Amino acid sequence: MTFERDKDQAADLQRQREIDHPSSAVALFGTDEPLHLDAGTAIAPWQIAYQTYGTLNADKSNAILLCHALTGDQHAANVHPVTGKPGWWTTLVGPGRPVDTDRFFVICANVLGGCMGTTGPASLNPQTGRVYGLDLPVVTIADMVRSQAMLVDRLGIDTLFAVVGGSMGGMQVLQWAASRPERVFAAVPIATGARHSSQNIAFHEVGRQAIMADPDWRSGRYLDAGTRPSKGLSVARMAAHITYMSEQALHRKFGRNLQDRPTLTFGFDADFQIESYLRHQGLSFVDRFDANSYLYVTRAMDYFDLSADHDGVLARAFQGTKTRFCVVSFTSDWLFPTRESRIVVHALNAVAANVSFVEVETDRGHDSFLLDEPELFRTVRGFLSGAARARGIAPPGGSD
Amino acid sequence: MTFERDKDQAADLQRQREIDHPSSAVALFGTDEPLHLDAGTAIAPWQIAYQTYGTLNADKSNAILLCHALTGDQHAANVHPVTGKPGWWTTLVGPGRPVDTDRFFVICANVLGGCMGTTGPASLNPQTGRVYGLDLPVVTIADMVRSQAMLVDRLGIDTLFAVVGGSMGGMQVLQWAASRPERVFAAVPIATGARHSSQNIAFHEVGRQAIMADPDWRSGRYLDAGTRPSKGLSVARMAAHITYMSEQALHRKFGRNLQDRPTLTFGFDADFQIESYLRHQGLSFVDRFDANSYLYVTRAMDYFDLSADHDGVLARAFQGTKTRFCVVSFTSDWLFPTRESRIVVHALNAVAANVSFVEVETDRGHDSFLLDEPELFRTVRGFLSGAARARGIAPPGGSD
Repeated sequence: MTFERDKDQAADLQRQREIDHPSSAVALFGTDEPLHLDAGTAIAPWQIAYQTYGTLNADKSNAILLCHALTGDQHAANVHPVTGKPGWWTTLVGPGRPVDTDRFFVICANVLGGCMGTTGPASLNPQTGRVYGLDLPVVTIADMVRSQAMLVDRLGIDTLFAVVGGSMGGMQVLQWAASRPERVFAAVPIATGARHSSQNIAFHEVGRQAIMADPDWRSGRYLDAGTRPSKGLSVARMAAHITYMSEQALHRKFGRNLQDRPTLTFGFDADFQIESYLRHQGLSFVDRFDANSYLYVTRAMDYFDLSADHDGVLARAFQGTKTRFCVVSFTSDWLFPTRESRIVVHALNAVAANVSFVEVETDRGHDSFLLDEPELFRTVRGFLSGAARARGIAPPGGSD
Repeated sequence: MTFERDKDQAADLQRQREIDHPSSAVALFGTDEPLHLDAGTAIAPWQIAYQTYGTLNADKSNAILLCHALTGDQHAANVHPVTGKPGWWTTLVGPGRPVDTDRFFVICANVLGGCMGTTGPASLNPQTGRVYGLDLPVVTIADMVRSQAMLVDRLGIDTLFAVVGGSMGGMQVLQWAASRPERVFAAVPIATGARHSSQNIAFHEVGRQAIMADPDWRSGRYLDAGTRPSKGLSVARMAAHITYMSEQALHRKFGRNLQDRPTLTFGFDADFQIESYLRHQGLSFVDRFDANSYLYVTRAMDYFDLSADHDGVLARAFQGTKTRFCVVSFTSDWLFPTRESRIVVHALNAVAANVSFVEVETDRGHDSFLLDEPELFRTVRGFLSGAARARGIAPPGGSD
C-alpha cells in the first residue's frame, strides 16, 4: 500500500518534471530500487532526467555517456529548454562532430543533486511530502556515478564505449573508470583532477557562504517560503565565473575598457565592461539554477578525492584497468592546472594503463573545454575513432 | 559665521575620532583647506589620522611615508587599538628593522575613504550633519596621495626621504613618484602595479556585490539604520583573501585537511580547515572594517591606471624623475604578478631612472609583503641604507 502510494507520488513527480522539462526523458526508480549514497543512507523513489542523441547499435556497443560540469545539465547538444540557447557541448557533440552522433549513441544525464529533473534538493521528499531542501543527504561524485550506472542498466547497456566529461564531468569520468572499469571501454577526463584542491574548496566555500548569507535563502527552505536567494546565488556565480577564465583572456576580452561611457563615472555602477559582464553572468544564472543545488553540487566536488578512497595511493584506483584513457588539460587553466592532470597520468602509467595525454595550448582558461578549441576536437576525434575501431563499432556511412 | 560653525563641527569630529582611536594623531583641515578630488569636487572640513615612529631630524630629511594596503590602516608598527594584535608591518618597521625607526621618522596615515579616523564614508558629512554613506565622492589613489601630501605639509616636511608601500600602498608610492617627484627622494613599490587588471577589478566587483546584496547594507545608509552588512562584508573578505595567498601556500598550509573531525560530515558545516580559516577571516574582518569603506577603497584601486593619466604611455608618468626606485615583486603573487612590476621597471628604464628590481622567490603569494621574507628585508634595508647615505642622513649610533 505504501509502495503503491510512493509509486503514485513518484509518477506525479515524473509528470511534473516532464512538464517542467518537456524535452528530457526521465528514468524513474521506485522504492524497490533505492539509490544508496556514500552518506550511509539511501533515497527512494528517485529519478534521473537525461537526453540521448544518435542510435544505439544492435550489440549496444556504441554508447557514450557525457558527464556535465557544475552548472551544466543534460542538454548537451540540443537547444536548452529554459534559456533557448544551444546546448553546452554542441561544439564537440553532434552529427560529424568529434563525438559523432551519426556513429555513437550519446547519453547525457542531469547529475544527482541537480535541478533539471534529476532528484535534487528542490525535489519532493517522499517522506514528508515537502521539498527536500537540506534534508536531501549530501551527495558525492561516486553517488552521481552510481545513479548514472542505474540509468545505463535501465537502458539495457552493459559496457559504455566511452565516458567523456570536463571539470566536474571529468571527475565523474575518473570515478566511473575507478569504480566500474569493466563497464568503461574508453575514458576522456578533460580539465579535471583526481581531487579538489584547497584553493578550489575555498572558492566554493565563498559561493556557499554568499548563498547562505542571503536572508531569502531561509535556511534552505526558500521554496516553501516562496522566496529565492537570487542575490546570494548571483554573487556565488560571479566569484566562480572568474575562476573559469584566465587572466590573459580577461585582459584580451575586457582589459580596462569602459562600459558604454566615455569616462569613469566616480560611482559604483558598472563602469568597466568586466563588471557588467560579471553582473550579467550572475543575473542570468539565477534564472536557470537552484541555489540549494549549487550547495550540493559544489560540495560533491569538494569531497572528491579519488586517492583518499584508495589509502592515499591514486594508482590503486586504477589497478588492473583495461580502459583506454585520453587525458586533456589546458595550459591557462588555473582551476584545474595541468599538474592535476599529470597526477592522474602518472597514476595511470604506474599501473601500465593505456593512456594518452594532451595539454592544449590556449589562453582561454578552464572554460576552454566548452569553447572552439581545434586541438581539443582533433584529440577527442582521433582518440574516439581509434577506440571505436578497436571496439569494432561501424563507422558512419561505412568508412572511418 | 558658517566658517566658525564648520570649525566647531570639525573640532567635534576630531574629538570623536580621538576617542575612537586614542593612539592616533589626527590632522584636521578646515573649510579653508579643502581637499580637491579627482571626481571634480572637494571636501571640507576633512581630516587624516596618522601614526609616527622615530624622530624627525633637524633638517627634516629623514621622513619615510608608509602607505597601507586595502584593509590596512595607520597602525603599521604599534599594537592595533581594535584587534590588540601587532601592527601589520612590524616585520619590516621598527628599531633596527629594515625601515629603522632609530634612524628614520616614519609616518603612516589611514587612507582617504578609510575607517580608522581619516575622512571616509562613515564620517559625518558637514553639509548634512549625517554620516556621508555614499554621499562621499568616490576617491582615487591620487586623492589619497593629495591628502597625504597635505599631511606632510602640515608636519613641515618638504621632501620625503622615502615612500614605501605594498599592494594598494605600492600604487600610492607610484602615484607619489609620478605626481610629486620633487618631494620623493626614494620610492619602494612592492607587490603592485601601475594599473588594476581586469581580473582584479572582477574580484573587487564580486566583493562589492556581496556587500550591496546584503539587505542590512540599506543602500549604504546602514549606520543611520543601526544595522551592519556584516554577512556581505564577510563574504567579500573571504573572496579577496583567497587572492592574497598562492595555491601552493594553501596546499601546504591546509591541503584537504579536515577541521577537528576524523571524517567528512556530509553536511555544509566547515569540514575542511580551509573553510573554517576563511570563515574566520571573514568574521574577524567585520569587527574592524566598515563596509562602505570597502566599497570606496576597492573602487580607488580599480580606477588606478597611471598610464591612462599620461596618454597611455606609462614612461611619461616618470619623465625626468630623480627619484631612486626599488621595485619588488614575489614569484607566487597572482594578484600583482611580476609582469606588472616589470611594466613599471620598463617604464622607469625608458626614462633612464635610477631603479633596482628584485623578484623575491617565495610560494606565499601576494601577502608575502606582510610576512617574514628575509630577501624582502635584505632588499629594503640595503636600498634604504644606500639612499640614506646619498641623502646624508646620519646612521643610528653614528655607523651604517
